[in-house]
Amino acid sequence: MEKIIIPPLDLARAEEIRAGWAKMDKPAGSLGRLEEMVVDYAAMTGKPLPEKIKTAMVLVCGDHAIAKYGISAYPQEVTLQMINGYMRGTAGANVMARHAGADVFVVDVGTNFDLSHLEKVRQCKVAWGTEDFTQGPAMTQEQAEQAIRVGMEVANDCIDKGYNLLETAEMGIGNTTSTSAIVSGFLGIDPELTVGRGSGINDERMKIKRQVVIDGLTKNKPKLGDAMDVLCKVGGYDHASLAGVIIGGAMRRVPTMVDGVNATAAALLAYGLCPECAKYMLVSHLSSDISHKKMLEVLQLKPIVDAGMRLGEGTGANLAVVVLQSAIDVYNKLSR
Amino acid sequence: MEKIIIPPLDLARAEEIRAGWAKMDKPAGSLGRLEEMVVDYAAMTGKPLPEKIKTAMVLVCGDHAIAKYGISAYPQEVTLQMINGYMRGTAGANVMARHAGADVFVVDVGTNFDLSHLEKVRQCKVAWGTEDFTQGPAMTQEQAEQAIRVGMEVANDCIDKGYNLLETAEMGIGNTTSTSAIVSGFLGIDPELTVGRGSGINDERMKIKRQVVIDGLTKNKPKLGDAMDVLCKVGGYDHASLAGVIIGGAMRRVPTMVDGVNATAAALLAYGLCPECAKYMLVSHLSSDISHKKMLEVLQLKPIVDAGMRLGEGTGANLAVVVLQSAIDVYNKLSR
Repeated sequence: MEKIIIPPLDLARAEEIRAGWAKMDKPAGSLGRLEEMVVDYAAMTGKPLPEKIKTAMVLVCGDHAIAKYGISAYPQEVTLQMINGYMRGTAGANVMARHAGADVFVVDVGTNFDLSHLEKVRQCKVAWGTEDFTQGPAMTQEQAEQAIRVGMEVANDCIDKGYNLLETAEMGIGNTTSTSAIVSGFLGIDPELTVGRGSGINDERMKIKRQVVIDGLTKNKPKLGDAMDVLCKVGGYDHASLAGVIIGGAMRRVPTMVDGVNATAAALLAYGLCPECAKYMLVSHLSSDISHKKMLEVLQLKPIVDAGMRLGEGTGANLAVVVLQSAIDVYNKLSR
Repeated sequence: MEKIIIPPLDLARAEEIRAGWAKMDKPAGSLGRLEEMVVDYAAMTGKPLPEKIKTAMVLVCGDHAIAKYGISAYPQEVTLQMINGYMRGTAGANVMARHAGADVFVVDVGTNFDLSHLEKVRQCKVAWGTEDFTQGPAMTQEQAEQAIRVGMEVANDCIDKGYNLLETAEMGIGNTTSTSAIVSGFLGIDPELTVGRGSGINDERMKIKRQVVIDGLTKNKPKLGDAMDVLCKVGGYDHASLAGVIIGGAMRRVPTMVDGVNATAAALLAYGLCPECAKYMLVSHLSSDISHKKMLEVLQLKPIVDAGMRLGEGTGANLAVVVLQSAIDVYNKLSR
């Protein structure tokens, strides 16, 4: 991959905002992490605070061959149904995005469906879903790099259009299984501690899901701490592209609100590929999926919302964006 | 006090909404507590879900004689300054309320200031602040009942105007000290575990604050679990009126979003006065003040936002209202 250069945080700007909070007629620090979020946002962008956050929700779609093992409560066709829902604007993701004033950009980076008739879907298919990682690598390094590049390009285009916040979202039946394998592979954690209920599966599917993760790790032996190796062997195109979105944003000082377990696994990969990009991450909510807490510890991110959500699709990110916008409003109004 | 009758929750309505969530094209339960919030809200109101939540933020103001001991980082005059800020619409509370689409109603139930020139302040002064509870009871039972009635009347008027959600907010220098005494007195918990940093006080003030709470409890010996006794002896007018708001709302099936430690102490008193009213409480965020977690356990309430906030003034409630409105939007859109 080409060389990635991440600019440093603007610490002077952070100090300016911190001083602004301190001068206000309110107990010091009494807005807690809302204050820190605004400081962090300013340090990332290096600019005066905007009146309004302009958010691009990048909804990356990719299928997973391992879905065929019945590790999800849903068949692969649901990936397509959900994408149709996004296009109609009727999915939970759309409603929450509207609420947060976020614009939704759907990207096909690796679905197993022909979406070429859907004009509003950005067509960037690298492959028709991953390979079955219980039998070998999920993708080649070339494919992984191409998918990362897709994310970087989408981030770039959004930033060119004036978006000052990126939000991760993903769709792809089977992706929490791949997420578990990524977390186990990258951090060296027993699958017992990383395989969660995902879409809400029963005990029987849980057993299969755990076995698929174990098989994937046993077959491929991904290298501990080697993000590219882990991605190629047990990752997904959705993970790869979201890692690219985060990296692309960080290169241009635009933060990404990371949402849910799958996007956080992508964030973990982005961090592995380029540790500095973690400075440009914000995190929305604590997912009820078990591997989430561990990943957030590694990334040193603290969620704002704790509502036991596990839908993905950027739903939590949109809540967090509303919180961030509220905090920025308070800052702008009270510091005048 | 007159007899308080709280209607039961509408369990059929709750079931209807629960079934609505279950029918949607998304993993069951994947919106976590957002789903439960909507179910709870419907069970409380017993009506079809509204398009828009119409929120009345009741900002109750009362002073505390114990403020003279220097238990707060701020002098009593700050109560007045803050109220002037609310009237100008420039305080953090106003900004957050606008963000949530909530209307702010400021009530003087017991400040130590003449606010009669402030037309928009509801004038319901029961006394010019509490008595010094280290020397005797903070108020008489008659005064406590009058202050509770003020809250009930405000709730009633708001409901008459069509508000379908009440939000607690309070202002009164010294109120977290009174809150600690309420929690210790009502639940029988050592003040060591209930006295927090409040407005962000230093170690020296913490020592005084703890001593004031101990003195108040030693002098007055409030009866464990007797809400009226605890309120009269170590409570505040702000606490009393907010308890009244919660009770008044519950009597007419309108939920109250309880915000922060002081309002939660008021909720604890409301629960003590009339346990059924706890069914009509929602809670916004987990305050960083130490007694908050304990109270929420007793009330069996789980916060949505965890952002280390401790400003009070309803700031957290407004974030939670935005979350609730998002969840209702998702329900309304996805269940059609």
